[in-house]
Amino acid sequence: MEPRVSIIMGSTSDLPVMKEAAEILNEFQIPFEINALSAHRTPDEVEAFAKSAYSRGIRVIIAGAGMAAHLCGVIAAMTTVPVIGVPIKASLDGLDSLLAIVQMPPGIPVATVAINGARNAGILAVQMLATGDEALQMKLIAFKEDLKKKIVKANEELSSVKYDYRV
Amino acid sequence: MEPRVSIIMGSTSDLPVMKEAAEILNEFQIPFEINALSAHRTPDEVEAFAKSAYSRGIRVIIAGAGMAAHLCGVIAAMTTVPVIGVPIKASLDGLDSLLAIVQMPPGIPVATVAINGARNAGILAVQMLATGDEALQMKLIAFKEDLKKKIVKANEELSSVKYDYRV
Amino acid sequence: MEPRVSIIMGSTSDLPVMKEAAEILNEFQIPFEINALSAHRTPDEVEAFAKSAYSRGIRVIIAGAGMAAHLCGVIAAMTTVPVIGVPIKASLDGLDSLLAIVQMPPGIPVATVAINGARNAGILAVQMLATGDEALQMKLIAFKEDLKKKIVKANEELSSVKYDYRV
Amino acid sequence: MEPRVSIIMGSTSDLPVMKEAAEILNEFQIPFEINALSAHRTPDEVEAFAKSAYSRGIRVIIAGAGMAAHLCGVIAAMTTVPVIGVPIKASLDGLDSLLAIVQMPPGIPVATVAINGARNAGILAVQMLATGDEALQMKLIAFKEDLKKKIVKANEELSSVKYDYRV
Amino acid sequence: MEPRVSIIMGSTSDLPVMKEAAEILNEFQIPFEINALSAHRTPDEVEAFAKSAYSRGIRVIIAGAGMAAHLCGVIAAMTTVPVIGVPIKASLDGLDSLLAIVQMPPGIPVATVAINGARNAGILAVQMLATGDEALQMKLIAFKEDLKKKIVKANEELSSVKYDYRV
Amino acid sequence: MEPRVSIIMGSTSDLPVMKEAAEILNEFQIPFEINALSAHRTPDEVEAFAKSAYSRGIRVIIAGAGMAAHLCGVIAAMTTVPVIGVPIKASLDGLDSLLAIVQMPPGIPVATVAINGARNAGILAVQMLATGDEALQMKLIAFKEDLKKKIVKANEELSSVKYDYRV
Amino acid sequence: MEPRVSIIMGSTSDLPVMKEAAEILNEFQIPFEINALSAHRTPDEVEAFAKSAYSRGIRVIIAGAGMAAHLCGVIAAMTTVPVIGVPIKASLDGLDSLLAIVQMPPGIPVATVAINGARNAGILAVQMLATGDEALQMKLIAFKEDLKKKIVKANEELSSVKYDYRV
Amino acid sequence: MEPRVSIIMGSTSDLPVMKEAAEILNEFQIPFEINALSAHRTPDEVEAFAKSAYSRGIRVIIAGAGMAAHLCGVIAAMTTVPVIGVPIKASLDGLDSLLAIVQMPPGIPVATVAINGARNAGILAVQMLATGDEALQMKLIAFKEDLKKKIVKANEELSSVKYDYRV
Repeated sequence: MEPRVSIIMGSTSDLPVMKEAAEILNEFQIPFEINALSAHRTPDEVEAFAKSAYSRGIRVIIAGAGMAAHLCGVIAAMTTVPVIGVPIKASLDGLDSLLAIVQMPPGIPVATVAINGARNAGILAVQMLATGDEALQMKLIAFKEDLKKKIVKANEELSSVKYDYRV
Repeated sequence: MEPRVSIIMGSTSDLPVMKEAAEILNEFQIPFEINALSAHRTPDEVEAFAKSAYSRGIRVIIAGAGMAAHLCGVIAAMTTVPVIGVPIKASLDGLDSLLAIVQMPPGIPVATVAINGARNAGILAVQMLATGDEALQMKLIAFKEDLKKKIVKANEELSSVKYDYRV
Repeated sequence: MEPRVSIIMGSTSDLPVMKEAAEILNEFQIPFEINALSAHRTPDEVEAFAKSAYSRGIRVIIAGAGMAAHLCGVIAAMTTVPVIGVPIKASLDGLDSLLAIVQMPPGIPVATVAINGARNAGILAVQMLATGDEALQMKLIAFKEDLKKKIVKANEELSSVKYDYRV
Repeated sequence: MEPRVSIIMGSTSDLPVMKEAAEILNEFQIPFEINALSAHRTPDEVEAFAKSAYSRGIRVIIAGAGMAAHLCGVIAAMTTVPVIGVPIKASLDGLDSLLAIVQMPPGIPVATVAINGARNAGILAVQMLATGDEALQMKLIAFKEDLKKKIVKANEELSSVKYDYRV
Repeated sequence: MEPRVSIIMGSTSDLPVMKEAAEILNEFQIPFEINALSAHRTPDEVEAFAKSAYSRGIRVIIAGAGMAAHLCGVIAAMTTVPVIGVPIKASLDGLDSLLAIVQMPPGIPVATVAINGARNAGILAVQMLATGDEALQMKLIAFKEDLKKKIVKANEELSSVKYDYRV
Repeated sequence: MEPRVSIIMGSTSDLPVMKEAAEILNEFQIPFEINALSAHRTPDEVEAFAKSAYSRGIRVIIAGAGMAAHLCGVIAAMTTVPVIGVPIKASLDGLDSLLAIVQMPPGIPVATVAINGARNAGILAVQMLATGDEALQMKLIAFKEDLKKKIVKANEELSSVKYDYRV
Repeated sequence: MEPRVSIIMGSTSDLPVMKEAAEILNEFQIPFEINALSAHRTPDEVEAFAKSAYSRGIRVIIAGAGMAAHLCGVIAAMTTVPVIGVPIKASLDGLDSLLAIVQMPPGIPVATVAINGARNAGILAVQMLATGDEALQMKLIAFKEDLKKKIVKANEELSSVKYDYRV
Repeated sequence: MEPRVSIIMGSTSDLPVMKEAAEILNEFQIPFEINALSAHRTPDEVEAFAKSAYSRGIRVIIAGAGMAAHLCGVIAAMTTVPVIGVPIKASLDGLDSLLAIVQMPPGIPVATVAINGARNAGILAVQMLATGDEALQMKLIAFKEDLKKKIVKANEELSSVKYDYRV
């Protein structure tokens, strides 16, 4: 199957963070590709990547980068496919990366998630695709129900723990 | 026509910022609704709003809020429709609102745009809908071309200005 | 005995911080309950929790959460029982969590304590209950006297240390 | 009637902010007093104030201060009556004041509200008193219902506005 | 004469700040050009600009941009001509822009000056050109001497003022 | 009389802030001088100033500067006379200046006061001189008593105001 | 000999930082005392300490504290002896403590040094005492000369290292 | 060969960071010198260094310093040779150092690179020298091509990895 989501990161060292997006896409059985290309060191490759994305069947791009993180904005500038930005924590606790991704000027949005929030980037990509895909929407509802069950179960386990602290 | 995008804000005082999202949706002729509901002062109304969104035909929600901005995350918790968060500048230059919107925990993403970036929220909503709508995609490409023309024209006008500064 | 204070946290991973509140309540022999429920992943359970709190006899709620910490504000929105917020340090040194808890809009206060300050949250809960309970007030005065004695004793021990540095 | 709440601020210049706490207390018909005393310029008066608070019938103290805002913590150190801290914005957008109030060390909590959040401080004081006063609790529930009605009404007014932006 | 320095900004609204760089270049009689091109809205034009810079005789580029300021880094990625970055204050007091310009990853430096520091960017451009141009170096020494004279003169004028404050 | 305190600032534009230090010194009848010299634009004059300070009878230096405020540290490096640093608010709310003054490396302290805190710099200078001057110490005690009286008087005036807010 | 400098810290856990001040005082053979007293947990002891300082012969106080660090300001409020504040890094990288110490309101200065900068606090105390003590001044000049020699020596050692990196 | 670039740092403890600049200069076979001199502890040596730089053949200075990092600005004040500033991370995640270097007042620029970005400082020095040296320019182009190849190769290696995550 052709990839519908493209995960891209500024450097292969971002893989341990960004693979969480891949895991979500696998869970939803959405075909995807992964690339590591730098906005600063391989601008031509990034351009080729961004400009061909739509015609290659890509409908959502997830881009992760650290420090003065330009990758997300640079790609968003060259495609109309929505770009989800993942600020990678590399310096200043990730604040530089967050601001460099989220504070985009009018005209070119980047859908920014939390610092190192690649898992949420994966979920957001699924939500975007589900705007036009009811079957995917049903899977999302089931996924959300699952999240809830885990928390409720954890809370029930806590109820035995909690008596340790009571009078 | 039934609204496909829902714009919601924490208070009517956010309207001057949030209406820029509405203007973009008008430009793309996408039907939308606007509401002002507070996560903290009208939690039940927010819940009813969020839980009914999908069945009412809403496919993207744009939510704006300031300070400890919980509205976006609270809605995202109660629907699988993607939520775009607009941090409103009300105190601390908007940094409190930005962090309260973007730093969502794993499981519940909010697609965050720049502080007061409602115009970009509107564009992002269109991009999300266009993942499953080729006609909309074509409109986005034309829109992007227009943005470019304005800048190129501004640059040309600058070329007359610039000689004022040259030797 | 029925719990009068309820400790709630966004995830069981917050227990090592939040149990310090429980230890204080034990010390003052105030019955309490502990729950782990997420504002984002289990919104309905949180709602049921908050709306029933007063009628279940709860008079103070201590809520801890990290990142875009909405739990405290969400609960405060659905009860008139005072909510003490504990910002949990999970990213950005806890600054995101602090701002997301303390910067509540007019109408819905959250009584915020220091980052990871669960021990103080416990003491504050006791102080709140003591506004209408003179016996508890007496215990608080004794508790404060004890704190002072420990410091004074530490200072006396220092007086032997300090000669090491004198001429 | 004897005051049950005491509002104190570091300087009379803080009155325009702090009077919002007074207005809430008036609304709930809770007797209160107002003082302006500086932790740094009148330490003895602050000490006399704090040490006598409980015996004078004060059950909650609301303290506002700016910059290196020590007033709240200094009072909290000398009484077991709960202290609500209001960070006043005087420099650095109020961040200095917020941190100087909320980041109290273990043992001496200050219940901190938002920067310039005196209105919420007033509501929180009422909530604290209501932990032992069911009649006050009923008033709070009515107050909360009112807040909601205002927002719902504002939203309804918005529904006429919103058609201006629709297609 | 062919321009040796190129001043570029993300939007014509940055001209009031960026023209200070032009004024310095005029003062040193260094021919220059000015352009307004956006990394996000006109990526192809920016690419053409950057890739042709060296062959068009440009030896230093001064680039100013605000918010998530990618212009400087994007140009630096596509040329070996040194790029001086001027963070423009547009939001968050210019901190977002500063971090988005200065925190470049290894391989692609941007020589960053102060927020809104276009005048210093002009001087730095002259200093760079003077590394291979002794006549320019002599002009710089004279310029520095002048700066000093203005301060010394201001100090002398202060000496009459200062007696107003003396006993 | 020969000046015992020297007030120095990076630019005459800092005079409106720095003159508050002068006013305090006048109040205590301590002879002083004022200079405006820039660490960056007149380094030789600053050096001559700093190196001659002690022999000219100067016992305390008050130095104010903004942005990357090096003046205080540069002077402290060239004299053993204590240097009081006043961060001037010129950008980033004065945070850049505060950090550039207070974060001195081991060996060369600068006694830093609040952003724009020139009045306190004047008082601190008096306190330093009073370490070896008992008459000055007595004046300081009277000064402190006066501060207190003003606050106590303000509080008394408030007592008439406060009944406006009481029930 | 009677102590002339008093080192005080909020908790004995601050001793590893604060002892560096003691080491400097030992080096200059200035008698000192060390105490650990908390502004919040032992306010009466702190008051007794501050009010008796001058009459006990103390001429400079060095106070270190972390988080919402009130100790320095509280002491400064109750004595005319100059207070040197050392922000201790305990949370938020020490920024909370720095702001809570340096941002004192007009009337009550605290001479603040760098985060964890106890060594510089010691040197500053010596400089203050030397304003009225020429012999101490001579020792300071020698101390400064020593600092310089160490750096110059380190630089000379570097000259052998540096050839490793040259062509 | 005489050094054309001078690397200077505030302390030998900065060598592990600053040597990355040296490695780049070696790679480009540009002769350089390394010194460790402190703006605060050896001001006279720094002055001699800066004032003689141009006549000794130095055309670019790379200066690294931490905390209240004055070294870069102090040198820039005393020479017309361009100064590249490297903020060293020593406290507050390097933010203090960054602001103390980049926020220079009008007249004296410092070309600032990322926190700990010594490698980029080296590349920037080469770019500056290449403004008047075509052979060096050719080497830079080759260097940039190399950077790109490494990334492209890493991306190709990723293509085998990525199938692990695909459906």
